[in-house]
Amino acid sequence: MTDKLHEECGLFAMFDNDGYDTARITYAGLFAMQHRGQQSAGIAVNNDRKVTLYKDNGLVHEVFSDEVINSLKGRMAIGHVRYSADGEQDVLNAQPLVSRYIKGPLAVATNGTLTNYHELKHQLEQEGAIFQTTNETEIIMHLLARARMKTGRVETGLAEIMKNQLRGAYALVMMSPQKLIACRDPKGMKPLCMGKIENSYVFASETCALDTVRAEFVRELDPGEIVIVDVNGVRSIRDNCQDRKCSSMCVFEYLYFARSDSIIEGMSVHKARKLTGKILSETYPVDADIVAAVPDSGVDAAIGYAEASGIPYAKALMINRYVGRTFIQPTQEQRTTAVRLKINVIRDTVKDKKIVLVDDSIVRGTTCAKLVAMLKEAGAKEVHMRISAPPFIWPCYFGTDIPSREHLMACNYTVDEICNMIGADSLGFMPVERLPEVVPDINCGYCDGCFTGKYPYEHE
Amino acid sequence: MTDKLHEECGLFAMFDNDGYDTARITYAGLFAMQHRGQQSAGIAVNNDRKVTLYKDNGLVHEVFSDEVINSLKGRMAIGHVRYSADGEQDVLNAQPLVSRYIKGPLAVATNGTLTNYHELKHQLEQEGAIFQTTNETEIIMHLLARARMKTGRVETGLAEIMKNQLRGAYALVMMSPQKLIACRDPKGMKPLCMGKIENSYVFASETCALDTVRAEFVRELDPGEIVIVDVNGVRSIRDNCQDRKCSSMCVFEYLYFARSDSIIEGMSVHKARKLTGKILSETYPVDADIVAAVPDSGVDAAIGYAEASGIPYAKALMINRYVGRTFIQPTQEQRTTAVRLKINVIRDTVKDKKIVLVDDSIVRGTTCAKLVAMLKEAGAKEVHMRISAPPFIWPCYFGTDIPSREHLMACNYTVDEICNMIGADSLGFMPVERLPEVVPDINCGYCDGCFTGKYPYEHE
Amino acid sequence: MTDKLHEECGLFAMFDNDGYDTARITYAGLFAMQHRGQQSAGIAVNNDRKVTLYKDNGLVHEVFSDEVINSLKGRMAIGHVRYSADGEQDVLNAQPLVSRYIKGPLAVATNGTLTNYHELKHQLEQEGAIFQTTNETEIIMHLLARARMKTGRVETGLAEIMKNQLRGAYALVMMSPQKLIACRDPKGMKPLCMGKIENSYVFASETCALDTVRAEFVRELDPGEIVIVDVNGVRSIRDNCQDRKCSSMCVFEYLYFARSDSIIEGMSVHKARKLTGKILSETYPVDADIVAAVPDSGVDAAIGYAEASGIPYAKALMINRYVGRTFIQPTQEQRTTAVRLKINVIRDTVKDKKIVLVDDSIVRGTTCAKLVAMLKEAGAKEVHMRISAPPFIWPCYFGTDIPSREHLMACNYTVDEICNMIGADSLGFMPVERLPEVVPDINCGYCDGCFTGKYPYEHE
Amino acid sequence: MTDKLHEECGLFAMFDNDGYDTARITYAGLFAMQHRGQQSAGIAVNNDRKVTLYKDNGLVHEVFSDEVINSLKGRMAIGHVRYSADGEQDVLNAQPLVSRYIKGPLAVATNGTLTNYHELKHQLEQEGAIFQTTNETEIIMHLLARARMKTGRVETGLAEIMKNQLRGAYALVMMSPQKLIACRDPKGMKPLCMGKIENSYVFASETCALDTVRAEFVRELDPGEIVIVDVNGVRSIRDNCQDRKCSSMCVFEYLYFARSDSIIEGMSVHKARKLTGKILSETYPVDADIVAAVPDSGVDAAIGYAEASGIPYAKALMINRYVGRTFIQPTQEQRTTAVRLKINVIRDTVKDKKIVLVDDSIVRGTTCAKLVAMLKEAGAKEVHMRISAPPFIWPCYFGTDIPSREHLMACNYTVDEICNMIGADSLGFMPVERLPEVVPDINCGYCDGCFTGKYPYEHE
Repeated sequence: MTDKLHEECGLFAMFDNDGYDTARITYAGLFAMQHRGQQSAGIAVNNDRKVTLYKDNGLVHEVFSDEVINSLKGRMAIGHVRYSADGEQDVLNAQPLVSRYIKGPLAVATNGTLTNYHELKHQLEQEGAIFQTTNETEIIMHLLARARMKTGRVETGLAEIMKNQLRGAYALVMMSPQKLIACRDPKGMKPLCMGKIENSYVFASETCALDTVRAEFVRELDPGEIVIVDVNGVRSIRDNCQDRKCSSMCVFEYLYFARSDSIIEGMSVHKARKLTGKILSETYPVDADIVAAVPDSGVDAAIGYAEASGIPYAKALMINRYVGRTFIQPTQEQRTTAVRLKINVIRDTVKDKKIVLVDDSIVRGTTCAKLVAMLKEAGAKEVHMRISAPPFIWPCYFGTDIPSREHLMACNYTVDEICNMIGADSLGFMPVERLPEVVPDINCGYCDGCFTGKYPYEHE
Repeated sequence: MTDKLHEECGLFAMFDNDGYDTARITYAGLFAMQHRGQQSAGIAVNNDRKVTLYKDNGLVHEVFSDEVINSLKGRMAIGHVRYSADGEQDVLNAQPLVSRYIKGPLAVATNGTLTNYHELKHQLEQEGAIFQTTNETEIIMHLLARARMKTGRVETGLAEIMKNQLRGAYALVMMSPQKLIACRDPKGMKPLCMGKIENSYVFASETCALDTVRAEFVRELDPGEIVIVDVNGVRSIRDNCQDRKCSSMCVFEYLYFARSDSIIEGMSVHKARKLTGKILSETYPVDADIVAAVPDSGVDAAIGYAEASGIPYAKALMINRYVGRTFIQPTQEQRTTAVRLKINVIRDTVKDKKIVLVDDSIVRGTTCAKLVAMLKEAGAKEVHMRISAPPFIWPCYFGTDIPSREHLMACNYTVDEICNMIGADSLGFMPVERLPEVVPDINCGYCDGCFTGKYPYEHE
Repeated sequence: MTDKLHEECGLFAMFDNDGYDTARITYAGLFAMQHRGQQSAGIAVNNDRKVTLYKDNGLVHEVFSDEVINSLKGRMAIGHVRYSADGEQDVLNAQPLVSRYIKGPLAVATNGTLTNYHELKHQLEQEGAIFQTTNETEIIMHLLARARMKTGRVETGLAEIMKNQLRGAYALVMMSPQKLIACRDPKGMKPLCMGKIENSYVFASETCALDTVRAEFVRELDPGEIVIVDVNGVRSIRDNCQDRKCSSMCVFEYLYFARSDSIIEGMSVHKARKLTGKILSETYPVDADIVAAVPDSGVDAAIGYAEASGIPYAKALMINRYVGRTFIQPTQEQRTTAVRLKINVIRDTVKDKKIVLVDDSIVRGTTCAKLVAMLKEAGAKEVHMRISAPPFIWPCYFGTDIPSREHLMACNYTVDEICNMIGADSLGFMPVERLPEVVPDINCGYCDGCFTGKYPYEHE
Repeated sequence: MTDKLHEECGLFAMFDNDGYDTARITYAGLFAMQHRGQQSAGIAVNNDRKVTLYKDNGLVHEVFSDEVINSLKGRMAIGHVRYSADGEQDVLNAQPLVSRYIKGPLAVATNGTLTNYHELKHQLEQEGAIFQTTNETEIIMHLLARARMKTGRVETGLAEIMKNQLRGAYALVMMSPQKLIACRDPKGMKPLCMGKIENSYVFASETCALDTVRAEFVRELDPGEIVIVDVNGVRSIRDNCQDRKCSSMCVFEYLYFARSDSIIEGMSVHKARKLTGKILSETYPVDADIVAAVPDSGVDAAIGYAEASGIPYAKALMINRYVGRTFIQPTQEQRTTAVRLKINVIRDTVKDKKIVLVDDSIVRGTTCAKLVAMLKEAGAKEVHMRISAPPFIWPCYFGTDIPSREHLMACNYTVDEICNMIGADSLGFMPVERLPEVVPDINCGYCDGCFTGKYPYEHE
């Protein structure tokens, strides 16, 4: 638990061939991917060309009541959870978006960021296009409607704009009047996998959603692949596919975004995180009594650290499970603090102990400093902070909402200075050069631009 | 995480001498004790004899907005979170209760159960009393108003009804027009402690609430003690106090109810739970690869088991942190289940492993059976279930909402039968005879009636 | 339409012998009497001794949804609409009140004011009673519970407290576990009538409610009468009944409170109001072109004035029917005013005309002044104001919420001064000495204390 | 009060030069025109090129709270109340619509119907346009964005699409980034007038809105005129203007839609309605005791009938002013009916009387039949029904939501048959050939297609 970075949306989709309640399964799938976006949730269903959409700001379980889910009937469904990188809160920008184009309703949900958004928008405006949102998905819909008039089919239209117009990181699910379509950008920067429930097909950003709806994992979409499902079955357009080894899965999915029970491009997220703990214990060993995690973000790496070092894993911090997004923030002059409302020290565990404390990131450092202080106040002899990600010092152009450099500790201070500022006895970050060891099972390339400044695409 | 037993309310109170925002501090205190009651929350403040009350069904953060808290101004405040044992959902029964008696407003909140409730109520009815609620607190208010006419003071009235009329387990906080009063029943069955913030006084059911509002722990109230705080300071009435060693703190607070970062009657709850793990590892050793917890209920004991046995602690189950009380329950015919929406297996951890799985209780056994099945399905070789509480086989007359015997597995089946039913390879419960070892630091007696059938009071 | 005086509650009750939906009929009855109270509405039903209550602030149609009405099942029902004279808005004070006394649930709703409220309350407090509301109905419930213990029956208890304890104006409907009971105070100051639907009985404050639910009018309750309906039929306790001619029906019901389609104590309210118009035309004749009403409050009297004088009735003012209670009040600096949002002049009607403008009262005079100004601005040559009630210059102790004397124009200025202040060319009030001519068909005495200062009861 | 026909939206707009609160004035203006649309309400403000929109389903006072109005700051504002002819309830279709086009935000609100909607939409779709609504306003916005790219200015773009593309009846207000623009269609079928508040300009569908905000009436827009207001003042584009005498104001505005205090194209609505009463009294004289109105729809014509015939105007029916849109509809088996909840007979007035009962229309006849029955049941000797509009027997293509012919009594039965069916003693409709006498002061032509089948435009 630290000043959180924000994840960038989760996608789910289903084409039913067995009589399932697609909206209810989509709900469960989105629910499993709530960590990917807590700002808004939406589901659109297509019932024999009639599309019904329900979306609102809030968590999945807040947005959808049983009554609402019951009102969403359709053979196809797509769903979306959102975190809006630019703080845009207008519910109009929540996804899926639904428009009518010449062939009927079109519903689209995307995860990602177009790096040439402004260029594409300006071009459309010149042609007299009007816009309801500030959403990249709407740009894609305009381009699709136009490309469809040219190529005669919506999926060939999609292939064309992927090739000639869209630049950036994106995964996308959409429903035309009769087809469910899913795709990943040619660089494969965002995850999207396919599963099967009996004879029906589902798509999800993470495998944890497949597990939750008890779908069998089929495979991940290839970078650049377009999968089309309709009454005739499943087929792919692979015109934009490239060599998988040249693709660029966001490495931050493993370190931070994804749920630890997901498997992405062949690599277990939990295993990746345990490996960070192992590497941290090798790189920054310490003579300590216990290894403890900042709940819940540091747990996987802390277990890895404990296992590798032989120092016992312990529970030093207690998290209040009832902390919601909406609890009243304590004001400056209050007795308590947001951190204290969320986390308390277990005195019994920490008194007179030398502690390795593991978390997944330090952004602004304020939370971290408070936790170290609370531990010391409760009698901890030493607190050694270990961070399971390298310091991010570069911007992300592909959807991760990293604070500007002036707010990033790692951009402005040395590790020693940061250690001092948070009051720890030592501090160690995951070494960037050992990142390849964290994802040994990955079956593609990855992007670590936020740590290295090297990106797969040029950016605007 | 199992079919949950329900906790029985949390209390918080404050008398301010420093200009603090009493409602906001009470909010934070209740927030820290949300685990003690999720059905309703309420705060009453007394602003120079004018009492304002706000209560509603819901979690603390749902019931109270910033605006509501701002509207609650007063030098004294009392707060309450409730779980209603009898399923009564009428918000009228939410606490605190506020009435007007001859001296002005009276606000009372209680945690506990009167065993002679029906007898007291009948007697009052005979005298023409009328009732708004089915709440024991209202009985206490009637008795108080009458006793006050007799003894001349509300606190002496309270001492008298504690001596002559109230029987059972209770802790109580109340505000008369000018005094804040707190007390524990003579057997001390429910916890209540006192803290200090500068020159101001707070009371809370658990110390975790004191930590959260950064109050200094002063002491626990003695069994039978009445503490009165007013502008003249703090004083006690100890007429109903008895030998502390004869008191009967509910042992279930340590095993189940309380937050693991609380300290009750001198004993750390987290330490008690770790000790159950140690005892389980001694009593039911097993040759296993990993020790894992059912999140979050089994974590403390699992850590204790791992530490004592030397088997590594691992994360085998992933809990979805976004599960609220209100998410849509999957229906019978759905693909997913409530358990699956909440918990998923981390395949990587469990494949081909022999697992010790620790939880704090088995009530109906259905959840447990599903988790064992999920682990096996994911490749676990063996699953050895360890439960950190003894089987409860007796009713509780003092506020714990234990299902009727017909629903309690332990009343109807042998341990072997239960083991079979949940599909585990072995099953071990905390042995009841070793309970004293679980609470080595406790400074008073305790009640273990739900395990032994031996109670401190006769019951109706 | 003027600065309104506030009415004092409407009552409805039903005992079903035919299988009717009592809550739905009570809803319709309350709906018809919405003019008697717009602050809160409530219905309690008794389903074989189980009482369910639903009440809230708001209009009848706002408080009750179809779903809520469907949840209110019972053979007996009582309902209430409230205007709270003392501005108390706490929904706890909304009626009916429901308590449990020794025989089970008791639900009571009253219309009126006890003049010895404080005396009764103090006496109860001395006996240790506690109170939830500041409501007179709760006093009655306490007294009833005590009297019932003494007399053995709730209806004899009611007869006793009517005789010995309750003083003031009240009509009341109540449900004990098995009986529906209705009564009027011995002076008969508040209306209450009985109707029949097939073999079922209903009670209502006004006959318009009987018409709305298509009940046959049976009769009005006698002053002091208690009517009991149960499975054995209907019976009365008449111990507190007196000579009807000595009773004191509130004359303001005819002039102001009641709906003009109601008949109270034999006298048509519409006819009474038309007669005020006739008397005004005789007392203050004027050479005018048209007679117009302030909508809607002056319409009946204006029609009477027009008919008696031979001057044509015209529509000079247009009321906006969408004005609700909650529209945004224009602020001082706004272009428009509350009066203008509600009423506009029909220029075509008033240009170059001499107008008689009729309303039912002048309280503070501000609205009246604005209307006269608007008429003149639209070209009216003369505006002659006629008021169909005498000036009230005395307080009401029985439930009518008359502003304090300092706010009553008629207490502080002569008629000429008022005429000047409102900018009218002449002004005439209904002469108090001709009030008997307004209610020629009334079959009892009446109270005109607010005009004359002569009251049927002493007051505290 | 009858089975209502539905009105077709009201428009309001303001360009402020004096520092007024434009949203609050727009609110008041819409409030005055609530009768033109009760389904949704919306206001958009333009604060230095930043447009803020708030709209929702509901009445003006339900949609807008003080807080919402305060959040709408801007020098320009446009507002809209809607009745949706096609029953579309999606709030997306509520107006104003706001889009972004190349020059920034564009907000548009319209009243009316394009007869070539489908043709225009299809053409846009062919060009790859996508749509969010099923709203004609969105079509206009697409055409405007395209025409603006061609003509270089939004107002010249508007002139061009009015000339070449838009066909049908419409009035429109819009805000470009810097201009407030209002127009009426070349046939002038929908009303729109201009007013002034000091140096600021307002536009409204009806003059009653100008009166309510105390704006001075300046003039009506000419048919086909475009008025542009910006910081440089007011100017018109008159390229689409034609001879006013050839225009076609909807005559139903006088008979039914407009508020009786409005003046449209020089003709007082109240006067027009009184004239219908006069004509009815001449055409269908009757020897009666009283003339009464169905409240409130028949009041103006009834007053005209009474005045012309010399028969006294009386109040025979009492309307319940608290009937909202949302009250619980009585079910079939209920004691009461929707009509009875709304209207009750004043027995005193009708007993033994011969009554002329006036209303403005008969659509399905059911309400009318119930009222006649209620009057007879209350003792009326004769009931002579007079309807102040001719029977509509033709569809309207320009926005009036007339039921299909199978539901229109007048299409399926003779006047005698209808008279029989409603149980009246006689029945007379306003003669269509005397319509010119109803609008003697009108300064333009009018459309009476719904009575005659003769329309100003061809229709699709």
